[in-house]
Amino acid sequence: MRHIPEPTRKRLVLLAQLLAQQKEDRITSLEIGRQTGWSQSVIRRDISMLELHCGKSNGYRIQELEAAIKAALNLEAEPGKQRKCCIIGLGRLGAALLENSIPENSPFVIKAGFDSSMNRTEILSSSFPLHPTSKLEEVIKSENIEFAILTVPEKAAQETASRLADCGIKGIVNYTNTVLSLPESVAVENVSPLTALTNLLSNFTFTEKDS
Amino acid sequence: MRHIPEPTRKRLVLLAQLLAQQKEDRITSLEIGRQTGWSQSVIRRDISMLELHCGKSNGYRIQELEAAIKAALNLEAEPGKQRKCCIIGLGRLGAALLENSIPENSPFVIKAGFDSSMNRTEILSSSFPLHPTSKLEEVIKSENIEFAILTVPEKAAQETASRLADCGIKGIVNYTNTVLSLPESVAVENVSPLTALTNLLSNFTFTEKDS
Repeated sequence: MRHIPEPTRKRLVLLAQLLAQQKEDRITSLEIGRQTGWSQSVIRRDISMLELHCGKSNGYRIQELEAAIKAALNLEAEPGKQRKCCIIGLGRLGAALLENSIPENSPFVIKAGFDSSMNRTEILSSSFPLHPTSKLEEVIKSENIEFAILTVPEKAAQETASRLADCGIKGIVNYTNTVLSLPESVAVENVSPLTALTNLLSNFTFTEKDS
Repeated sequence: MRHIPEPTRKRLVLLAQLLAQQKEDRITSLEIGRQTGWSQSVIRRDISMLELHCGKSNGYRIQELEAAIKAALNLEAEPGKQRKCCIIGLGRLGAALLENSIPENSPFVIKAGFDSSMNRTEILSSSFPLHPTSKLEEVIKSENIEFAILTVPEKAAQETASRLADCGIKGIVNYTNTVLSLPESVAVENVSPLTALTNLLSNFTFTEKDS
């Protein structure tokens, strides 16, 4: 398995999602470029990182390309082998994410929700069990949960993330604005509106100045 | 202004947020490493991209470092010069983001919310005006809105994003699972739980295999 650099990985993740949206059998790199805005050389180099044994004169076979990406990034969504996730913090944002946030045919399945308010865990309805946050360690270990979606209030963010790290969580999707301080073994995706907007702005600034 | 590569830019965005959380006057690169998990060489290289004219023998002066990052990435939050944003789609997720998602001292200010249901725009309360989506183009142009947070249902995602691009939006924070097909002039941050989890998993996969 060759090492795939992070920007390529992120584009391949999006490309797999894009391929899943297509209605045709084949797709050309020109069409991928039209739909994503990526340059031809970027697309060809990204795809060259995959072990793909098909001609590309008439474009890529969508099924083969999607399968190659999923194999390379280990994203197969086999039933029973899905990666287990939980949501922590069931305020308005967490409660909104309880619904439809993870499609059924994805490599992920949400196994538990947590909130410090017993009121919320009892009143909210969901297709998976909701627990008080005091049971975090117990449930994560017994369910073998690997990933957590963090939607707690800012003041509880670091403490909750540290507890998640201590019980072996491998990755956190961080919807809070707090920069989490965690051991290297825990990966974090920072996806709060503020962080996302700031990333857009810093990118846009350079485009403005470069042009 | 030297070109700052994207991974460095994203780390500097987080570092600025981290510095804003500190209570001390100075911070060492060791302490930054402890709080972020980044290696010493990565931290030093990132900071070397800034125009920073202070000694670092006793660590960096937090105020100076934060100011240097904000200047380099053009993230200053001067009152009246904040970048204008809107939220499109006021279902449960959009409605949750109406509250407290953007702190007051940030470089951003939300100027409008949109939903296709007049019911929602009339019932929801918010500190900025809510409009029917039919007024999207009109309001974005008259308010000079530059960035949009997209929280519409999947089936409306591409069409809404295209309308945003057509009226000159510069960046979209995409909370849907749809891969948006947009001209190169529009930057996109994909931050749905599914995309974020998939990025974590693909990263984690390599760490697993590398080790």
